[in-house]
Amino acid sequence: MHSKESAILLISCPDKKGIVYKISHFIYSNNGNILRSDQHADEESGTFFMRIEWDLDGFAIEKNKIIKAFEPIAAEYSMNWQLHFSAKQQRTSIFVSKMDHCLYDILLKAKEGEIATDIACIISNHESLGTIAKYFNIPFFVFQKTKENKLQQEQKELAVLKDFDVDCIVLARYMQILSAHFVSHYPNKIINIHHSFLPAFKGAKPYHQAYQHGVKIIGATSHYVTELLDQGPIIEQDVIRVSHKDSIEDIIRKGKDIEKLVLSRALKKHLEHKVLVYANKTIVFD
Amino acid sequence: MHSKESAILLISCPDKKGIVYKISHFIYSNNGNILRSDQHADEESGTFFMRIEWDLDGFAIEKNKIIKAFEPIAAEYSMNWQLHFSAKQQRTSIFVSKMDHCLYDILLKAKEGEIATDIACIISNHESLGTIAKYFNIPFFVFQKTKENKLQQEQKELAVLKDFDVDCIVLARYMQILSAHFVSHYPNKIINIHHSFLPAFKGAKPYHQAYQHGVKIIGATSHYVTELLDQGPIIEQDVIRVSHKDSIEDIIRKGKDIEKLVLSRALKKHLEHKVLVYANKTIVFD
Amino acid sequence: MHSKESAILLISCPDKKGIVYKISHFIYSNNGNILRSDQHADEESGTFFMRIEWDLDGFAIEKNKIIKAFEPIAAEYSMNWQLHFSAKQQRTSIFVSKMDHCLYDILLKAKEGEIATDIACIISNHESLGTIAKYFNIPFFVFQKTKENKLQQEQKELAVLKDFDVDCIVLARYMQILSAHFVSHYPNKIINIHHSFLPAFKGAKPYHQAYQHGVKIIGATSHYVTELLDQGPIIEQDVIRVSHKDSIEDIIRKGKDIEKLVLSRALKKHLEHKVLVYANKTIVFD
Amino acid sequence: MHSKESAILLISCPDKKGIVYKISHFIYSNNGNILRSDQHADEESGTFFMRIEWDLDGFAIEKNKIIKAFEPIAAEYSMNWQLHFSAKQQRTSIFVSKMDHCLYDILLKAKEGEIATDIACIISNHESLGTIAKYFNIPFFVFQKTKENKLQQEQKELAVLKDFDVDCIVLARYMQILSAHFVSHYPNKIINIHHSFLPAFKGAKPYHQAYQHGVKIIGATSHYVTELLDQGPIIEQDVIRVSHKDSIEDIIRKGKDIEKLVLSRALKKHLEHKVLVYANKTIVFD
Repeated sequence: MHSKESAILLISCPDKKGIVYKISHFIYSNNGNILRSDQHADEESGTFFMRIEWDLDGFAIEKNKIIKAFEPIAAEYSMNWQLHFSAKQQRTSIFVSKMDHCLYDILLKAKEGEIATDIACIISNHESLGTIAKYFNIPFFVFQKTKENKLQQEQKELAVLKDFDVDCIVLARYMQILSAHFVSHYPNKIINIHHSFLPAFKGAKPYHQAYQHGVKIIGATSHYVTELLDQGPIIEQDVIRVSHKDSIEDIIRKGKDIEKLVLSRALKKHLEHKVLVYANKTIVFD
Repeated sequence: MHSKESAILLISCPDKKGIVYKISHFIYSNNGNILRSDQHADEESGTFFMRIEWDLDGFAIEKNKIIKAFEPIAAEYSMNWQLHFSAKQQRTSIFVSKMDHCLYDILLKAKEGEIATDIACIISNHESLGTIAKYFNIPFFVFQKTKENKLQQEQKELAVLKDFDVDCIVLARYMQILSAHFVSHYPNKIINIHHSFLPAFKGAKPYHQAYQHGVKIIGATSHYVTELLDQGPIIEQDVIRVSHKDSIEDIIRKGKDIEKLVLSRALKKHLEHKVLVYANKTIVFD
Repeated sequence: MHSKESAILLISCPDKKGIVYKISHFIYSNNGNILRSDQHADEESGTFFMRIEWDLDGFAIEKNKIIKAFEPIAAEYSMNWQLHFSAKQQRTSIFVSKMDHCLYDILLKAKEGEIATDIACIISNHESLGTIAKYFNIPFFVFQKTKENKLQQEQKELAVLKDFDVDCIVLARYMQILSAHFVSHYPNKIINIHHSFLPAFKGAKPYHQAYQHGVKIIGATSHYVTELLDQGPIIEQDVIRVSHKDSIEDIIRKGKDIEKLVLSRALKKHLEHKVLVYANKTIVFD
Repeated sequence: MHSKESAILLISCPDKKGIVYKISHFIYSNNGNILRSDQHADEESGTFFMRIEWDLDGFAIEKNKIIKAFEPIAAEYSMNWQLHFSAKQQRTSIFVSKMDHCLYDILLKAKEGEIATDIACIISNHESLGTIAKYFNIPFFVFQKTKENKLQQEQKELAVLKDFDVDCIVLARYMQILSAHFVSHYPNKIINIHHSFLPAFKGAKPYHQAYQHGVKIIGATSHYVTELLDQGPIIEQDVIRVSHKDSIEDIIRKGKDIEKLVLSRALKKHLEHKVLVYANKTIVFD
């Protein structure tokens, strides 16, 4: 919990000697103090991943010149990189249908500052959750979708997202599949919650599938949305025990508690720039 | 933990009024004392399941006449039923290949009396675990299998199982698929451990599949063996967290601890006659 | 999930032959159909516990005459017993201070019917959560307490509870200790959530205690309130992992998610008449 | 899993600018390749912790000269530090009494290479587990202890430990309390397993205490041994659910499975030099 402003560098590149040295030299020689640093080397592919965060107080380079100053190092090591500032609160749009449990959970955690984000707007294909948006004082938009009008409606949604300067989209039990075109506007920035322990029970009615299979544990999975349904990089999963005594209704009820936890944890990690995507998998720093 | 001898009745039948009354009357009127009773009604199919255990001390009907005495009630309610006696220690055969962790776990728990069974024999397709069998003083048989000789070898295995009067078979990471013919000799009496959270990652190398998918949790599943590979009724499952930091080797290592727990719990429940199979699912009483 | 009305009998008594028979005979002979039955025998003390639920549709005894009809059996076996009807929705009062996470969780689950209760009123020692009460349309009362006025304020609270015909009280992070006098009005009907894995870290600031001790797991405990602080019978507990990376703020945040789950599970069990108290412990039927 | 040899530096010091830079410069300028690096800053006390591991292949400084070469940096930052080499297999002594489950678990995992250590010897206050030592071909010593001879026997134990060049001691359900004098010879090198979720249920018979309290979850805790009984820095904890149906025997049985997991995980972390002790707490790197 730093009240101070910090810079966050996210890096992936081929693993080579000297990366940590070069980056820490860049920070130290400009009078920066490292607040935290996490790294990971994927031995299979020889790829190096890093998240390093330093205090901007007293840092010798102005914020808007850091990118320029860091570029030579990035080029030398062929880095894929992003620079973020902790002071820049990200803006999130929540997509919902009729179920409200994940929506409430995120709104309440955002309100408490437990998830650091501005909820820019709520978008739905139904009117029903509008009263919640009103209670939390969040702009609410309804775009009903049919097979025929889907792409047009998505254009309108994209326009709203642009208007509201949205960085990140959460599908909080949104019961519509987004087109590949839509998804391409927010690569690794759309987070879905699927109510199963993926890759088991992809697609529709996963709790019913779980019930039919007689599993003893059910789960929920939060992942980035890609073109392929329920197959994007997994960010977080959790599970809960069920038994033969649990009806479908019990399973749905128990599952909802897990969905909330998993989705809000994934969103929090994403917003803290702690998630890196690689080979359709994620590196999630603690 | 009753040192006293008890009778255990396992029942499934169409749900109707009076079942509990009739059974409890049968026990009470013959001077039996119910030690524990568990029941479950599946509302979907209207099926009633029960496990009831009573003290045989002072029971008015001799052990070998209970079946005859109970038959009229069973007939009246169209029961599918089994009668067991706690004094009859069941005999288990363990099938293994080269991995020893599940084998040790079961042998040690059987030795301590934590799993109440006589380990009748160990059967393998490799010589390598023979020293363990020797240390625990258990008969050990090797039947190496090729595509060509599989059915013949299974005949020999069946002969050994018969010789040793085996009630129950545990596949403790046995790396051979049993034929439908073999399985048909021990319906719902062969317990396998599969090293994934089924139905995810059926078949070969589930940990490698899990690693490729980037899941954040891995699991193990114990189930009865049926003709369909890794699709029999699930008895028990458990999971453990993994992360991007875990290599395949780490996943395998962590998974082994879960496999042991899951398999020994499933075996214990089975041997205590607490598992009922219905519609390719299980009812597992506590 | 029975839409039909049922009767629920909760029993504890010395364990003797014939109890199950007598009760099932009572139900069967009056044309009742048992919907579910759970029992437990405590071997140490020789005590028998039972919860049995039957369909009232077609039951030969009128609802208001069941108590009278059952009394002879209860007397014969020296039973401690309660009779409940599923159609009687219980009325719950929620006590809160300034934290809203448990309050929201219960209100939302009650609204969805996941916890079957009428939230009769919300009582607080602060004004701050009044807007939530208003949003959910629940009567809200503030009774500020000092050492001096505590007993008087409690009298007013008791009056409100009586007015609103309250069956059950939930302390949803209520930061006041109730007097023994107050507690005596609702024996085993006041449910508290304590934010530690009791009996570790009783009393004030348990998360700070946990942080100081460097535990690797934190927990939450829901229990009935008795005269002794944080020592009443435990209904439910759950835990979550923490590490050296977690600050006090992180621990508090993670803990809140567990508190909600534990408290709402405990309340649900209580309202379904699935909790029996014995020797300062609970029997919680599934 | 590096087959290559690596050096591991463990550091704690006051948090200051430039630490990471100086260390990474030391490694890079001597042609070392960082394999992994973990760090943590305790904000409360302003202390910095680091574990950094680099490949010795091609490293410009000879192994036995690294300490000398690093000393100036260590002095500059007032570091508390240790240097380890991955090629140096540590030697572990296991202390046991009559229970064998933790002993088997460690021996089997060491044999498989899952825990990288040489089991140097087994020390007991009873003869009974000698056959296990013999089976695994490990030297076994018995030192029976009374109040009177305790310190003398400990002297003999210390002599054995010295003879066998032991680095680390595991108390695998060893039912004797070690004297402060003994403990002082192996500070933060003696790992105990206590069969409760500490700090709950310190001292004798924790499962019986748990049973009496009616807890719904039991746990196990692995910690470094200090002068104060069951109060040393916690390395690892885990838990398992219990219910009113579990007798003391059931709780003991379930607990044993958790004890094994917790102890072997703690030992593994310790042997990999991933545990740092600070303020009677641990930093455990992943």
